[in-house]
Amino acid sequence: MAAGALYGLGLGPGDPELVTVKALRLIRAAPVVAYPAPESGDSFARSIVAEWLRPAQREIRIGFPMRPGPPPHDIYDRAAALLAAELDQGNDVAFLCQGDPLFYGSFAAIYTRLAPRYETSVVPGVSSLTACAAAAGIPLARRDETVTVIPATLAEDELARRLAGAETAAVIKLGRHVAKLRRVLAGLGLLDGAVYVERATQARQRIAPLAEIDPASAPYFAMALVRRAGP
Amino acid sequence: MAAGALYGLGLGPGDPELVTVKALRLIRAAPVVAYPAPESGDSFARSIVAEWLRPAQREIRIGFPMRPGPPPHDIYDRAAALLAAELDQGNDVAFLCQGDPLFYGSFAAIYTRLAPRYETSVVPGVSSLTACAAAAGIPLARRDETVTVIPATLAEDELARRLAGAETAAVIKLGRHVAKLRRVLAGLGLLDGAVYVERATQARQRIAPLAEIDPASAPYFAMALVRRAGP
Repeated sequence: MAAGALYGLGLGPGDPELVTVKALRLIRAAPVVAYPAPESGDSFARSIVAEWLRPAQREIRIGFPMRPGPPPHDIYDRAAALLAAELDQGNDVAFLCQGDPLFYGSFAAIYTRLAPRYETSVVPGVSSLTACAAAAGIPLARRDETVTVIPATLAEDELARRLAGAETAAVIKLGRHVAKLRRVLAGLGLLDGAVYVERATQARQRIAPLAEIDPASAPYFAMALVRRAGP
Repeated sequence: MAAGALYGLGLGPGDPELVTVKALRLIRAAPVVAYPAPESGDSFARSIVAEWLRPAQREIRIGFPMRPGPPPHDIYDRAAALLAAELDQGNDVAFLCQGDPLFYGSFAAIYTRLAPRYETSVVPGVSSLTACAAAAGIPLARRDETVTVIPATLAEDELARRLAGAETAAVIKLGRHVAKLRRVLAGLGLLDGAVYVERATQARQRIAPLAEIDPASAPYFAMALVRRAGP
């Protein structure tokens, strides 16, 4: 029996309308859909396309601990084994990814384990990077400018070093790192222009000057955009 | 009479199926579609969605010189005036953008001119960045890694400085800059792992080690992905 094919589907930043025509077609066709989820609570990736899932589709929920730092490797090994069992039975598997499958997120770990053994396709999605820029109306880059994506989880000195060398910067994964980021940006004279974007394209989208938000209120999936060049 | 609304629509990297459901809906609904085009030849943005355009829609072709360097400012002023004339008559205008509207490309110049005066929405699209990574099967970033997007059009010393400081780098706008980029990457010991991606998601997609391609063969819309970290 021929093995099934694995699809890593980027579903975009949260608005179901920002799913691509291709991802939608592949989700509808797949006998099995898999998605990352917190140990308890709903899967954000699944919620984006919930309206298009069918009762006849088998769902594989892959629980990831939502703790800082890399999850233990055996979580990925077990997830890959679950998917491999479906693929070995000839079932195509659609792996749902918020944003883009290879731009942060857990699919890369699945990809490196399964792509050598199974037919695997990655369907790119709208990333939080461009979704936040669109929501805030901030050009990410023009002409010869560079753009750097920097996780706020870095140590303060490394964060400062990266931001000092960047033109436009997108600082992601803000969560509990807002106070640290603001100290760093203030030290570089960049805090005033920094724009905070939370839940871009979703119902509770919030856009505000980074200097003005309550640091305790920032979720993990929030971003700050820092543009040095003019508009 | 109420003015029309301006929509900047990201259409993704070229595969018509990578258009989002939202962009597709707005394209079909707009009485006027506008798009950038070379002085002679077809508009790439228009070609992505050509199958969905209707004869009843008015099309505004905005010619841009495809020369290196910034186009003269009055080109953007004239383009903005053309669109403003439609908006003033109450017509919604869909501006078609390959990739994402605010990630390089000409829409940012339209946006800065018209967003202060008209209701303007930007619909993010799948960027070439994640499309090339998906096509090549290369994770752009995991966990705390940074990603830097660097135009190959930069001067050689600046290109070297940016690449030396980057983790994963996406070097865009390769065109006639391949030989320069290879010199820089070789000097940094990074040439061997660099992957060349041309026309990602399109019919003539090409993926090859950057070291092996003919420098004279690279189009402007080609990219090199340089990942320092492991898979």
